[in-house]
Formats: sequence, structure tokens, C-alpha cells
Amino acid sequence: MVGSVEVFSSEVNGKNGSLPEDFDPTAVVSEPLPPVVENEAIVSGNGIEKKGREVVLGRNVHTMCHEVTEPDMDDDITGEREAYMASVLSRYRKSLIERTKHHVGYPYNLDFDYGALGLLQHFSINNLGDPFIESNYGVHSRQFEVGVLDWFARLWELEKNEYWGYITNCGTEGNLHGILVGREEFPDGILYASRESHYSVFKAARMYRMECIKVDALVSGEIDCTDLKAKLFSNKDKPAIINLNIGTTVKGAVDDVDMVLKTLEETGFTQDRFYIHCDGALFGLMMPFVKRAPKVTFKKPIGSVSVSGHKFVGCPMPCGVQITRLKHINVLSRNVEYLASRDATIMGSRNGHAPIFLWYTLNRKGYRGFRKEVQKCLLNAHYLKDRLRAAGISVMLNELSSTVVFDRPLDEEFVRRWQLACQGNMAHVIVMPNITIEKLDYFLDELFQKRSIWYQDGKSQPPCMAADIGEENCCCALHK
Amino acid sequence: MVGSVEVFSSEVNGKNGSLPEDFDPTAVVSEPLPPVVENEAIVSGNGIEKKGREVVLGRNVHTMCHEVTEPDMDDDITGEREAYMASVLSRYRKSLIERTKHHVGYPYNLDFDYGALGLLQHFSINNLGDPFIESNYGVHSRQFEVGVLDWFARLWELEKNEYWGYITNCGTEGNLHGILVGREEFPDGILYASRESHYSVFKAARMYRMECIKVDALVSGEIDCTDLKAKLFSNKDKPAIINLNIGTTVKGAVDDVDMVLKTLEETGFTQDRFYIHCDGALFGLMMPFVKRAPKVTFKKPIGSVSVSGHKFVGCPMPCGVQITRLKHINVLSRNVEYLASRDATIMGSRNGHAPIFLWYTLNRKGYRGFRKEVQKCLLNAHYLKDRLRAAGISVMLNELSSTVVFDRPLDEEFVRRWQLACQGNMAHVIVMPNITIEKLDYFLDELFQKRSIWYQDGKSQPPCMAADIGEENCCCALHK
Repeated sequence: MVGSVEVFSSEVNGKNGSLPEDFDPTAVVSEPLPPVVENEAIVSGNGIEKKGREVVLGRNVHTMCHEVTEPDMDDDITGEREAYMASVLSRYRKSLIERTKHHVGYPYNLDFDYGALGLLQHFSINNLGDPFIESNYGVHSRQFEVGVLDWFARLWELEKNEYWGYITNCGTEGNLHGILVGREEFPDGILYASRESHYSVFKAARMYRMECIKVDALVSGEIDCTDLKAKLFSNKDKPAIINLNIGTTVKGAVDDVDMVLKTLEETGFTQDRFYIHCDGALFGLMMPFVKRAPKVTFKKPIGSVSVSGHKFVGCPMPCGVQITRLKHINVLSRNVEYLASRDATIMGSRNGHAPIFLWYTLNRKGYRGFRKEVQKCLLNAHYLKDRLRAAGISVMLNELSSTVVFDRPLDEEFVRRWQLACQGNMAHVIVMPNITIEKLDYFLDELFQKRSIWYQDGKSQPPCMAADIGEENCCCALHK
Repeated sequence: MVGSVEVFSSEVNGKNGSLPEDFDPTAVVSEPLPPVVENEAIVSGNGIEKKGREVVLGRNVHTMCHEVTEPDMDDDITGEREAYMASVLSRYRKSLIERTKHHVGYPYNLDFDYGALGLLQHFSINNLGDPFIESNYGVHSRQFEVGVLDWFARLWELEKNEYWGYITNCGTEGNLHGILVGREEFPDGILYASRESHYSVFKAARMYRMECIKVDALVSGEIDCTDLKAKLFSNKDKPAIINLNIGTTVKGAVDDVDMVLKTLEETGFTQDRFYIHCDGALFGLMMPFVKRAPKVTFKKPIGSVSVSGHKFVGCPMPCGVQITRLKHINVLSRNVEYLASRDATIMGSRNGHAPIFLWYTLNRKGYRGFRKEVQKCLLNAHYLKDRLRAAGISVMLNELSSTVVFDRPLDEEFVRRWQLACQGNMAHVIVMPNITIEKLDYFLDELFQKRSIWYQDGKSQPPCMAADIGEENCCCALHK
């Protein structure tokens, strides 16, 4: 007899405590297949399904998806299932190769080879909770994670015994963490972020029920410190939690940490009344190597820095690094209710493979290797900008950036083919280490050829980009 | 000249606009190595570092970590670096094999073979944002993700055009999402969760600034509906957001959704005044196959269900599945500010490999395969419980569970060796598909042998477990 059944029956009022004599808790349902909803799921021969469904608010159509189908009873014998899956995966791999080849729009370094780590895919590696507190689960990679964290703490100049951090699932998690730490430091603080900030920053404000003030941005995409100053001044009575963009998503603009600190000082915010989170998703790893960049360093009174691992470093799956001051985590930890003292991460279970990927690349490249790649990216970005400019195309490249912004191609087909991220009239190419001159030439050739078609009859004109990237960068009929 | 530099200099007041003639934005720093902090990092010959650091509040010691070191200039030629890394990884792999072999404590199915997917590790697969809305980034796996989501929606009986969901990074993200959806439905709702709930539930309450009421649990671990009733009754004026545990973390107890619905009804909560999130991290995939389990189904007025992918399914990295009603997401989406209409996930970038792992296993096993594994796990759990009971050890196994709770081994060495999750006097083994009778015998032999040493002199006695698992399950001197 299962002891706990008696516990249930005796303690739960209103529940019939008696169980049949033949009760077998291990009995499973006789027919495990839930019924299929009618008028749905017309499966074609190869298991790929085209759904004729209407677009619903908040949800787009089910596009071609690889349906999961129930194995036939004899699949083990015939091998049909394995064969079908192998064919799906083979086709998929082919498409990944093609898509990877034509990718220029997102800040992902697609050039990596983790073949040496293939043997680890057989393990369920999970860094549960805090990187610095071992859990009883032994299949983890904390020894790699802490090595990676030390490397980044050194990059951003925070001493080993003064930092805390962890490897996140993505840039968003870094922002969620940094802003949460800020809010816990200043429960009634106001979140300030420029309107060019990543949408996860505003998502955080909403999630955390924080007052959030959007600050204007310059045409470059950089935070407008004049506007910031005015807004700080009008809200002097509440502490400030500031999100700084070390590379905005669209224009790759770098907020000037020194100018923001000056603005805080000028408006009377002392260091005990503000918290700065630096969203360094992409450029957090590049800026330290650029000579003239306003340095992102914990020697300045910033609270946290996050960076993505799948961007400049390159990684099969999204991941990121979050570094903050240990004292902030102590504030969290002192509150016993919080996280039940178990950990100070956003997620509980954490991907243990990501730290090993990062460790592998950091060890191979080193600080010097990254410096070389940063230089290459900036040079190639200038090459791209110069060639676009020479062709009479509106284009902007911020001085500390490898994000080349230009007018959105007229043809969505072309946008999709090259996987360009677009906003309004703008499209951009982000020059990552895998974007070589050859690839840029390939891209430019196609673009120029297409433009000669789009604009051949003179009826269509490239849009005016002055409001987006400034008059001096605009090559529209009026400004060229 | 970089156009945007002029933008900066002309627009930013207080910033010195003039740049030197020889300004080169691509110039990188001459010495990229940040200085190492003094009195730290005593690196031994093999690069593994033992740090003699004090324990700091909120942070444990840096344990043995694999430091990232700067490559030597001639590493490319000598191959020393590659050799060093290969040796680290080889030793690490060896330890993973050993740790995987001795794992019985966490609900992770470590038995999988994704060799066929090894070829995909070369791609940076990212399912940015919503699974149903394609982004321009082409290297994604939405076609697999949606297939997996359809499978789970069918399992939990929600029609294809009525659900929304996504593949998360872990069970915590599922809880964060479900509770957020509940809060958006009922902004002034109170979160109710039994004290046996996963800590991420209370973390969510704190993050989201929600009022949260802890409900008592029965000895079995199940939510105490008498206490729930009293607490609902005292807070009748505010909507209820309820977290149900479909398998508690420690005791594997399943909250009875039917009884909770009855309690809501009895206290006057109509369906427009409550939201139920089911945390099915482990058992969400098992319960549908157990004959007598209170069925988790969207035919009942529940709002969301989450399940982990690395638990019963098995996956190299943590992941999970979150399914909710499409109408709830529409509530979120109607608020334009929220997530900038981009997506309704918690994370932005999402691991595109996880859906393929899940797709692969679901396709191979099917509903029938999972039913078989569920039965095997329940049978093996009973085997373990019976053998412990026969040996006079306090033990509890809930009727719908494969979590076997027994008294915590006296020796922490043994706890670590078998990676047992412990709480107070309790330890547990969670019988997953990879926990065979042979492995259980191996474990039991060691346990019995150790116990004969721990308790040989009669000075030490196993603790009384009556308060933890009930008198009838306790085999202490008093209760046996």
C-alpha cells in the first residue's frame, strides 16, 4: 500500500478516501494518443504540413512546420522513422548552410568551429543556480563558467573578489538582471533609457512595475544628455536607474558613459542615488579594444554590464555574460525571502554547454585575438560604408560601431534573402568577424544590381533619410 | 570622415566637438591585456587554479576553475594551446561520464543520444521572439518548434488555433511566463502557491511586485485545500492567481486541480476572477499517461501549463515548453507598449537547438513511447520504495509520483557521490527513464553498506521523519 495515499485520504476533507482494492498507481492510460482536433492537421505524405489557418490577432499563421507524428508499430523494424527524420534533418541542414551564407543583418558571428566539443553533446550539463555555489548536481560546468566570468571581470576592470556574475541565456536576461539589481538597490527608483534602447529594457520596466522614462536620442542613436538632464532634474526626488546602450540595436550607437555621469553630477545625483546598467549586448566586448571609445569599466560608478555570447564571440545558441558588483548581490541575498536564498540569477537551471563554448573561444583567441577581430570589423564596416556612399546611397556608420545603416531595400525578397533587420526606412548590416570583404562584395553586387532595377524608371526614388541618419548622410534627391 | 562624428560634435552640448585630424576610429588599443589584480590568480602549471579566497557573503569560494589564459604568440605554431585545451576537455569528459553514471537525485533523464544532430552544432540557431511570427533572421528552427508545441497542445487538449506557446530555457522561465500572464489578466490579483512550490514561483512574485500568499501543504506535499479555502475566503475582493504544482520539487506531490477548482467555486470565485498556472516541470509530461491522475487539461479552466524538456524527455541543456491560451496573449499584445509588440516571450533570443532535440525525441518515442517510460519509472520507483521499506528505512512515495523520499544519508560524501537533492532530513531519488533496476541495486547496495557503518555502534540513530513524510512512513525508533 502506498503510504501517502492514506495521508491524502485522511487529511483532505471532502475527498473520498477509500480506494479500490485493486488500485494500481502504476497503471497507465490504455490509449495515450489524444484525439486530433477536427478540420486541422492535414498531413501530407512527408509529414510536413501546410496549415490553412487564418491570421489571429497576436499570432501569425502556422507556417510550414515539421509535425511530430506518432511512430508506427513496426517503425523499429522497417527503419522508416529513422529514414524520414534523417531526410528532414538533411534538408534542414542544407537550408542552414544557405541561410548562414547569406546572413549579414544580425550581430551574430556565425564563424565558429566547436567540433572539438561535439563529444560533450551527450551530457545533460546544467549549472543550476549560482555559479559560485556548487549544487549537488554533478554534471555541471562551473569550472569553465567561473573562468569565463573572471576573464570578463578583468576586461571590465572589476576585481575578482568584488564581482558577481553568471552566464545568461541571452542579452535580454542580462538586461532583466541588471535592471532588477538596480530596482532592488532603489525600490522607488525611476528607470531612464533612451528610446533607442533594446525593447527588453521596456519589457523589464513593465514586468518589474517600475516607473520608466524614455529619453530622447540623437540622430546618431546616442542618448540625448540634454533631454536626460531635463528629465533627471524634474524627478530629482527619486533615485535614477539608468540603462546605457553600449551599442544600440538599430544604429550601433554607443551612449557616452562619461557624459551621462557628468549629467548625473550636474543634476545633483550623488553615487548613492543612481544605478547604471550597461547593455553591452554587442559592443560590450568590442569597446574595450577601441582606442577612443568611452571606456566601459567598473572603475567608473556603474553597477552592471551585460554582453551577449552568441554575438561577437559566436556560439551555436544564444547566451550572454552578466557581471555586477558583489555588493549588489549581497543586498539581494540579505533578503531571505528572495529566491529562497538559493540563487540570484533570473533562471534556475542554466545551460552548461554555453560556458564551455565561450571558454573555448576565449582561450583560443585571447584578448589579443579579439582586438584583431575588432579592428578587422571596424575596417570592413568602413569599407562597406565607403562603397555605399560612393554609389550614392544614404548611409551612416557611427564612429565606434560596425553597424552600417542605409536605406531599406525596396524589395522584401532581398531583405529576407540577406536577413537584414529593418526599422522604418532603415536597414543595417552589422559587420561581424565572419563578414569578410568577399562577402560584402557579393552583397554589394547584388544590392547595386537590384537597385538599378528598383529605381530604373525614375518613378521610384530612394527615401529621404535625413530624419533617420542626419542630413549629411542622406543621399535623397533633396540632400545629395 | 565619419559622418556621425560630426553629428555627435554638433549636437552634443558640452562635448568637445573637434577631433584631431588624424582621428582613426578603427584604431585599437596597443595593449589589450587588462592588468591582473594583485595577490590573485596563482596559476599552476596546467592552468587550473586553486584560489585561496575567503568566503564572502552571498558568494562561495571560487572552487577549482579552468582559467582562461592569453595565448602565447607562438601557440599557433607549437600547437601547445590546442593540446592543453584538448587535455582539459578530455579530463572533463571523463568526469562527466563518472558523474552521469552516479546520478539519481535530480529529475533529469540523462539517457539520450542526439548523435544524429551533431551536424547542427555548427550553426547559430536562434528563434528570436515569437515562434509564430517569422523574424528576418533565417537561421532558426521555428518549423521544429511549432511541431513540438502542437504535440504538447494536443497532449494537454488545447486546440491548435486556441493556444500560444514557446520553447523556454527552463522550468523557471515557464513559471515566470505563466505568472506574468496571470498578472496581466488580473493586475491586482493575489498569487497563491503552496509552500512546497518551486522557489521560482516566489521569485516571480517578488520580481513582479505581486502580493503573494503561501498556502500550507499536506505531509504528502500536496496543497492543503482547507488552508487555501480559508485564505481565498479572506481575500475575496481580489482575483486569484494560483500556481499549481504538477509534481512538487522535493516530494513529487501533485496538487489536485479538481479539488482546487472546487475550492475556488466554494469560495465564490467565478472563472473570470481566477487564473491557474500549472507548474508541470517534471510530471506535466507524465501525468497525462497515468490512469488515475487528476487530468491536467485545458478542458478545465486553467490558464497555462509548463513542463521542462531536459527532465522527462532528456536534453543536453535545460529547456522547457510553455503552453497558454491564445486569448491571454492577445491581452498582452493589445498593449502596444508591452514588449514593443515584438513578442510575448520572457527572453528575446531563444535557443534554436532545443526545439530540434525535443522534436527528435518526440518523433522517435511518440505518445506511446512516453506512456511506456512513465510506467517503467513508476514501477521502478515502487521497487526502490519497497526495498528501502524492507530494509527498515523511512520512505515515502506519492501515488502519482516517481520521487522516492527517504531519510537523508548521514554522510555528505555519499550525498554528493549520488547527487541527492536534500532538504532538511529528507533526500530523494527521482526515478527517470535512465534509472534502471540495475542502477537502483547498485545505489541500494552502497547505501545499505554505508548505513551499516553509520549506525553500527547504536550511538547514531536515523532521524524521526514523521513530520516530513508522515508517521506511517517513518521507521525511526519511536514509529517503527
